[in-house]
Amino acid sequence: MSYAGHMLDTYPRDFNVEAGVLATTMDALIECAQACTADADADLSEQNVAELVKCIRLCLDCADVCAATVRVASRQTEYDAGVTRPLLEACAATCKSCGDECEHHAQRHEHCRVCAEACRRCEQACRELLAAMLGWRRASSTVARRRPTAGGWSTCSLGRTFPRRLDWRAELSGLRTRCSRDCGGAWPVRAPWRRPPRAWPSD
Amino acid sequence: MSYAGHMLDTYPRDFNVEAGVLATTMDALIECAQACTADADADLSEQNVAELVKCIRLCLDCADVCAATVRVASRQTEYDAGVTRPLLEACAATCKSCGDECEHHAQRHEHCRVCAEACRRCEQACRELLAAMLGWRRASSTVARRRPTAGGWSTCSLGRTFPRRLDWRAELSGLRTRCSRDCGGAWPVRAPWRRPPRAWPSD
Amino acid sequence: MSYAGHMLDTYPRDFNVEAGVLATTMDALIECAQACTADADADLSEQNVAELVKCIRLCLDCADVCAATVRVASRQTEYDAGVTRPLLEACAATCKSCGDECEHHAQRHEHCRVCAEACRRCEQACRELLAAMLGWRRASSTVARRRPTAGGWSTCSLGRTFPRRLDWRAELSGLRTRCSRDCGGAWPVRAPWRRPPRAWPSD
Amino acid sequence: MSYAGHMLDTYPRDFNVEAGVLATTMDALIECAQACTADADADLSEQNVAELVKCIRLCLDCADVCAATVRVASRQTEYDAGVTRPLLEACAATCKSCGDECEHHAQRHEHCRVCAEACRRCEQACRELLAAMLGWRRASSTVARRRPTAGGWSTCSLGRTFPRRLDWRAELSGLRTRCSRDCGGAWPVRAPWRRPPRAWPSD
Repeated sequence: MSYAGHMLDTYPRDFNVEAGVLATTMDALIECAQACTADADADLSEQNVAELVKCIRLCLDCADVCAATVRVASRQTEYDAGVTRPLLEACAATCKSCGDECEHHAQRHEHCRVCAEACRRCEQACRELLAAMLGWRRASSTVARRRPTAGGWSTCSLGRTFPRRLDWRAELSGLRTRCSRDCGGAWPVRAPWRRPPRAWPSD
Repeated sequence: MSYAGHMLDTYPRDFNVEAGVLATTMDALIECAQACTADADADLSEQNVAELVKCIRLCLDCADVCAATVRVASRQTEYDAGVTRPLLEACAATCKSCGDECEHHAQRHEHCRVCAEACRRCEQACRELLAAMLGWRRASSTVARRRPTAGGWSTCSLGRTFPRRLDWRAELSGLRTRCSRDCGGAWPVRAPWRRPPRAWPSD
Repeated sequence: MSYAGHMLDTYPRDFNVEAGVLATTMDALIECAQACTADADADLSEQNVAELVKCIRLCLDCADVCAATVRVASRQTEYDAGVTRPLLEACAATCKSCGDECEHHAQRHEHCRVCAEACRRCEQACRELLAAMLGWRRASSTVARRRPTAGGWSTCSLGRTFPRRLDWRAELSGLRTRCSRDCGGAWPVRAPWRRPPRAWPSD
Repeated sequence: MSYAGHMLDTYPRDFNVEAGVLATTMDALIECAQACTADADADLSEQNVAELVKCIRLCLDCADVCAATVRVASRQTEYDAGVTRPLLEACAATCKSCGDECEHHAQRHEHCRVCAEACRRCEQACRELLAAMLGWRRASSTVARRRPTAGGWSTCSLGRTFPRRLDWRAELSGLRTRCSRDCGGAWPVRAPWRRPPRAWPSD
């Protein structure tokens, strides 16, 4: 697992969006920022640098925007969709422009081909995170009623309680979450992002 | 004049937007990034740090987004509105969120008051640059015909040529530009900032 | 006054170094980062871009290092000289390399001349802040005795107490600080910027 | 392989240091920057945030310094040891301070434990890259004579020429490099990474 995933895994509160989608996007952003920085530099080493000016410029932009976006996306505390959403949109647009330009040089320069690929993946990841953010919003009103009111416990579809942490671990592997008491009740896939209790009740 | 203005002043080609508006926005972005970094830190020094967590988080976001935006805005070469526009929108939205939050603490903490002010100014500057970018688009079809076909010379309203560079120097101080040969012809204030069309009409 | 100065002015605790020197350095770092970003871009617009590859590369480095350094220098809370000092040294070295390279192109390109100037100023400012940090260390043992034992109060040269905050406000405007009780006692201009010792002598 | 490795793999010229060491360091820097950004944020979510102020501050510093360092280390073109070396030293020092502080909270907060680990790895990686850079300097005078005079060809230990690119591909997988003509001549593992001398001996 990447450090982005590791750190999400240890975050003490609930997430604002599905952790798996978030970790994938963060990895894509980090890789794209790195690829763009390196591609701008590789372009500067080429004989035909004058033909690569647009590529250099967009790579520098893309590296800057991805670097800012991954920082904002790394912050879960006091999450503000009004900040994250337009930034992800700007990042996807930048990756699109940069990926298009890099692709023009992909035949001639292998580094541009690799960078174009990183841009495409990052654009896609940003759009998927945006979709997940919207999905979470839509789901929250209906799901909310079934959510626990106090910290530490969830209620399954049969009305029994179970430890919250199980949820999102299960969620990460794409499974539906289940009641920890194995009562057979299930929990809707999107529910599980609440923080587990520090001290666990012994019942 | 700030360094942002100095550097615009020495840029070897035409700009994609009015240089005065651009320089003002860049200064506002730089100041907002600085104020937010310092405000997050000042919050960490306060006794009631636990109440300032949202302020810290948004200040960190705002510093990152402003820093990326000023870098992108500093690049004139191979300008791509598809990158700059959504980023300015994201930056304005971030400044709005951060400014709102800082304002909540402005009564109690002077550093939050100063930071809120920097955020407001930056939000406003981003919106003005966005408007200027749109203005440029509208104007470009009519203005374009008056632009020079080759590098270095403009044609004044009396049809005489003069060095292009004079234009934008005059523009910076808010004056109408004038023909360098002192023929009496003037150039509309907004004209010199237009990007020359790729294919120049033969008239 | 710049925002860097404004924000230092509102910081709720003592500084670890003279605020005037710190504000000057922060402004120089911000300006150098801006000038280097713009100069790399202006280089990309030049006909002889292939000859400017080294200049572009060093400008990109210098912009990155200055941007990181100004962020670290903007943080006063839990100041750690073991972080700030080597970073300032690295920054001064980067400004030296970048300034040297920009100077090679200063005759031909005005943007390189302006950027070289920004690098020189920034290198100088970093070295002065380093010197001030060392000076603080030397001075702290003698000055410390005159510092307050608990938060919020200083002792003037006549031995009377007055609110600490007055000190540094006065300092910023270049005046000698004065006892708030108007007893006539003064405080040496440089004194208020010292960090209080962790363990305070009982005298 | 990480994108850092991929991009090094496609860089069109020789490196200034062993690519394997460089790729490892770049990955460690990226991961440390990410871990520190996330740890500062996780700290802000904790109940005892007031006790974590030093940890937050150092994590913010460390994220900024690592982010700048990985950008500089990603640039091979017109490499300047006078920039890279002090920056790596500053970065190692910052990782040391941050790692020490995170370790204090590792027992209580899992996110601090993971972050401390990332800091330790990054500090170690920076020091190894510094050592490799010094090693390159020592070796360069003897190795230089065996380097090609013009772009694209190396000379194997039997004196036959082969395409330069083969070298470092082999190097990346840890093998000794071989003459592309399969003459049986080998090239010392470390040789291909040396920077060619500016003026090549005429032998």
